[in-house]
Amino acid sequence: MDNERIARAALSRLMEPQDAAGLALVQATGARDALKIATGQAAAGPALEREITGLLADNGAGTSWAGMAASLKRWAPRITDLAPERDLATMARLGGRLIIPSDDLWPAQLGDLGMQEPICLWWRGLEQELPGPARSVALVGSRDSTSYGASVTGDLAYSLAQRGFTVVSGGAYGIDAHAHRAALAGGSAAVPTIAVMAGGVDRFYPSGNEDLLRAVCNQGAVLAEVPPGSAPTRYRFLQRNRLIAALAAVTVVVEARWRSGALNTAHHAETLGRAVGAVPGSVHSANSAGCHRLLRDGGAVCVTDAAEIAELASPSGVGLTAPGTAHAADHDGLTLEDLILLDALPLRSTTSVDKLCAVAGLSADSVRAGLGRLGLLGLAASERGGWKRAKESV
Amino acid sequence: MDNERIARAALSRLMEPQDAAGLALVQATGARDALKIATGQAAAGPALEREITGLLADNGAGTSWAGMAASLKRWAPRITDLAPERDLATMARLGGRLIIPSDDLWPAQLGDLGMQEPICLWWRGLEQELPGPARSVALVGSRDSTSYGASVTGDLAYSLAQRGFTVVSGGAYGIDAHAHRAALAGGSAAVPTIAVMAGGVDRFYPSGNEDLLRAVCNQGAVLAEVPPGSAPTRYRFLQRNRLIAALAAVTVVVEARWRSGALNTAHHAETLGRAVGAVPGSVHSANSAGCHRLLRDGGAVCVTDAAEIAELASPSGVGLTAPGTAHAADHDGLTLEDLILLDALPLRSTTSVDKLCAVAGLSADSVRAGLGRLGLLGLAASERGGWKRAKESV
Repeated sequence: MDNERIARAALSRLMEPQDAAGLALVQATGARDALKIATGQAAAGPALEREITGLLADNGAGTSWAGMAASLKRWAPRITDLAPERDLATMARLGGRLIIPSDDLWPAQLGDLGMQEPICLWWRGLEQELPGPARSVALVGSRDSTSYGASVTGDLAYSLAQRGFTVVSGGAYGIDAHAHRAALAGGSAAVPTIAVMAGGVDRFYPSGNEDLLRAVCNQGAVLAEVPPGSAPTRYRFLQRNRLIAALAAVTVVVEARWRSGALNTAHHAETLGRAVGAVPGSVHSANSAGCHRLLRDGGAVCVTDAAEIAELASPSGVGLTAPGTAHAADHDGLTLEDLILLDALPLRSTTSVDKLCAVAGLSADSVRAGLGRLGLLGLAASERGGWKRAKESV
Repeated sequence: MDNERIARAALSRLMEPQDAAGLALVQATGARDALKIATGQAAAGPALEREITGLLADNGAGTSWAGMAASLKRWAPRITDLAPERDLATMARLGGRLIIPSDDLWPAQLGDLGMQEPICLWWRGLEQELPGPARSVALVGSRDSTSYGASVTGDLAYSLAQRGFTVVSGGAYGIDAHAHRAALAGGSAAVPTIAVMAGGVDRFYPSGNEDLLRAVCNQGAVLAEVPPGSAPTRYRFLQRNRLIAALAAVTVVVEARWRSGALNTAHHAETLGRAVGAVPGSVHSANSAGCHRLLRDGGAVCVTDAAEIAELASPSGVGLTAPGTAHAADHDGLTLEDLILLDALPLRSTTSVDKLCAVAGLSADSVRAGLGRLGLLGLAASERGGWKRAKESV
C-alpha cells in the first residue's frame, strides 16, 4: 500500500470537501507532508504559511483564511478518528477502491476544478476506465419529480445510454433515480451510469434506492470524495454537486423548483465553462420553474430530446441532424412572386392566365413564367387550357 | 377628401403589401405622383428609375428589380379595379376609416419598418389613439391550440390587459382568438386589443370568429393594410405578421409547431430589434416545438407569466419584482462554516460542543461562535447545556 494513497485517504476524513486551506496545503507540500502537518506531526513554518496564503489568494479564497493555527484547530477534533488502512480495507471488502489524481483511472476532467479538485475518490463498482468528459452527461433534478419529469428523464437517459453516453447523477429519489434506472436499461457503454454520493459509499443512501444503487455498482460506478461512514450532510450535497458537473460534458436539469439543489449543480457547470441544458415544461408546474429560471437567466440551453443533448456534449458532432429539417414545406424556396401566384391558384376549378394576373397582381409574362416553375415543382397543373393547384400544400 | 388619402387608398389596391419597387416609388415621388406613374397617367424618366434603384439598393432589395417597365406591367392588371372613393365610403359605412402616415393617429412605431412601412391602414373600430409601442404586446400562436395553450394564452392576455397593455394578435382561430377574447374580458386600456388582418377588414375572417372580431371592433380595433374586399392569401398572412411585430413592444409565441406562421412573426420582431418571448411547454407537445425552437436558437426569452412579459416590454420597469424572491431559505447568507455546523446539529436530541467539533470538523472556538450566530438567527437552540436545531429548515 503506497503512502500517497494512505495519506489522501486520511486527509479526506480530516478535511471537509473543498476545504480551501487544506487543499492549498496539499498542493504546497504534497499529500504525505500535508497529513503530517495537519495532524501535528510536523510543523508549518512561516514560509509555508505565506505560500498557502498566496495559493488561496490566486484562487480567490485568500481573504477569509485565519491562518494555519486556525486550520489546525479545525482539523484537530478528527485526528483520533483517522484509520485510513481500515477505510481502504473496507473499500476492498465492498469490491471497491480509492483512486487518487496520479492514478490512470482518475477522470482527467476533474482537473478543470483547479484547486477544488477532490483529494481522492472512493469508488464502489467494477475497476474499469471511467468515461471521458465528451461521453458523459449529467441528468439532475428534483427529488419530488412529477410523472412528466419521470417520463422525460427516462426517455433522455435511456436514449443517451443507447448512444453510448454515461449518465451521471446523484443517486437521490426522483429525477436522479429515473436517470440511473433508464441508463442501466439502455446502456451500451462500459459504464452506463455513475452515481456521485454526498456521503460515504459504504452505505447506499437514501435507503429506498438501495437496490438501484447496488445495480449501479454492478454495472457502473458509485463515487464519493468523503470516506466510508461519512453522513450525507447538506454541505456535502452542495460540494458533491461540483463533482457531478465536473465529470460531465453537459449538465441537464430536467425538473427543478425555483430553489433546488439541481440549480446549484447547473451553476457549478456554468462556472466550469460546461454546457448547461434545461428541459422546458408546463408554466403551471412548480417543478419546472427552476428550469425556466435557468432558461430565462440565459445560462441554459433549451433541450427537448437526447439528440439536442448529444449535440451540446459534442458541438462539432458530425452526422447530427437537427430535428424537423425533414419537414420542409412545399413552398419553401419559392420566390415571393411565385408564392403570390401559388396563393392565387384555385384548388378545384381551373382559372385563366388573365384572371391570375388580376388576382395575383402580376403581369402576364410573370404569371406564365411562374406557372412554368410551379408546374416543374409539381405545385401547379394545367387542365384543358386552365390552371389549378396540383395538390394541397400547407 | 384629400388627394393624398385617395392616392394611398388606390395604391394599397394596386400593390401587394411590401411591394419594394412600389414603396420606393412612393418614397421617391410621394403618393399622388406615384399613383399617376403606376397607372400610366405620368411617365417615369430615367432619373426616377435611377433613384428607385438606389433606394432599393439602400434597403437591400436592389438586385432583383427588373426595372420600371416590369413593375408597371405587374400593376397594370389591377388598374381597372381601382375605386378608392368607393373603398373609403365602404369604410365609413362600416364605422371605420383609412389612416395614412401623416395622420396624428398613425402608430409611430410602424416607422421602424423603414421602407416596409405600409402605405396606409384600413381601420375598423372606434376612432381613438392607438397605444404606443411600450404599451402593446403581441400574443401569437397556432390555430390548432391545445387546452394548455388556450389556458396559458387566456391567463397572459387577461393579466396583460388588466395591467393596461393592448394585446395585438391576428384574429385567427386558436391562440389568436383566446388572446383577443381574454384581453376584451380583462381590458383596462382604451384599446384592450387589436386584430391585424391579412385580408380586407370589411369581412371578418375566419367566419367562425365573426362575433369575436365584431367585439374587437366595438372595444378595440381591427386593422389591415389591404383594402376592403381583399382575400387573405398566404402571402398577405406573411406580410401581415410584420405589422403585428411592429405594432408591439414584445412578440410572445405561446404555442407553435416546428413550422408555424407565429415563428414568422417572431422573426419579424427580431429583425426590428423588438423583444421576442416564447412560452415553454411539454417536450411531448408538438404544439410547443416551435416555442422550444425559438428558445434554443437563442432569439427568444423564456416567459412564464404576464409579469415577465411586462418586464420585456418595459425593461426599466420600476416596482417589478422577480417571482420567487420571497422564498429565501433559512440558510441563505450563512457562511460555509455555519452551514456545516447547522448540518451537524441534531433535530431532536441535544448534543455537546465537543461532539459538534468532531462531527462538523471545526474547532471548539468556531463551534461556539457559530452556535451564537445560529442562535441569533433562530436556527440553533440550547437546552440544558446542549444544542439542537431550533426548527426544521429545508
